[in-house]
Amino acid sequence: MKLLEDKILQDGKLLPGNILRVDNFLNHQIDVALIDRLGEEFYRLYRDCGVTKLLTVEASGIGIACLSARYFNVPVVFAKKAKGLNSSDDCYRAEVASFTHKNVNTVTVSRDYLHADDRVLIIDDFLADGNALRGLCALCTQAGATVVGAGIVIEKAFQGGGDSLRAEGLRIESLAMIQSMSTDTGILFTH
Amino acid sequence: MKLLEDKILQDGKLLPGNILRVDNFLNHQIDVALIDRLGEEFYRLYRDCGVTKLLTVEASGIGIACLSARYFNVPVVFAKKAKGLNSSDDCYRAEVASFTHKNVNTVTVSRDYLHADDRVLIIDDFLADGNALRGLCALCTQAGATVVGAGIVIEKAFQGGGDSLRAEGLRIESLAMIQSMSTDTGILFTH
Repeated sequence: MKLLEDKILQDGKLLPGNILRVDNFLNHQIDVALIDRLGEEFYRLYRDCGVTKLLTVEASGIGIACLSARYFNVPVVFAKKAKGLNSSDDCYRAEVASFTHKNVNTVTVSRDYLHADDRVLIIDDFLADGNALRGLCALCTQAGATVVGAGIVIEKAFQGGGDSLRAEGLRIESLAMIQSMSTDTGILFTH
Repeated sequence: MKLLEDKILQDGKLLPGNILRVDNFLNHQIDVALIDRLGEEFYRLYRDCGVTKLLTVEASGIGIACLSARYFNVPVVFAKKAKGLNSSDDCYRAEVASFTHKNVNTVTVSRDYLHADDRVLIIDDFLADGNALRGLCALCTQAGATVVGAGIVIEKAFQGGGDSLRAEGLRIESLAMIQSMSTDTGILFTH
């Protein structure tokens, strides 16, 4: 999506360690008008899929999911990052390794908010190794819900997570796909 | 706001320790159509205040702030809960004690996203003791920004945080104000 690629080129900052910092429009300050346009695009892509719920994970995904959900006219559910180790039977749980923070989080969703008759569109800001997306899919599988696909704002295609999940049959629509990035050559997109 | 009060009476769950659980429409599953209506109401209340930015804190405030910001046509900034103790000079920082979680968080906002010429509307899901709101005001004060007021979804008026902040001169608009609640008598609103 050219609008988004232009914004990334204009405002994104490359940091050492393959980190792309987009916190001035996506995950600290949020350019709501831009994200609203992305939500409209997710709707165009998935409008015929009978989506009943958008699923994301706190914190950065929430704004994107809420702005997208207006178009679908369905609720958002955001998975929580579990604070402690206390396990409880009223949640679905999955482990997610974080590329950025170099740690492992447990993400949870209450059993009340994901059901076997749900058709879920997963929304997230980034797709890199695919761990967060795998975790969200695992929560849906535990609930017996159908994942119709994923709507991703920025995919770091060179990290391969998206391709392996597509090879497993998951539909993934990424609005910007980065083929390569470095402080020398800048950011190159693929389509 | 009657729409919201009715929703709280219908779907809210009272738990021991003065906890009101509204996670089926506000802070785990999000009823986006309802929250969009609340955002419209915040806009009606603050439309003449020259708001340049909505400020909230992760995670539950983000969806409400994003849906509200569409009406104001301004960006959202969400304060982050600091993970470690590592201090850095590129952030404003404030301490916030959590009523629900019985702990103290440091909340931070990058200096890049709050400025002296900003007129900030603070958005949050709950106001109880007022600690989160005080913390967000402190971040604005550090930036030299003007706080035009706060838009709160649910105020637990009996905990007094809202009244003391109003007495200090802060404008607070809460869309539902709970006067008392208990498992015996249920939830009573004040206006």
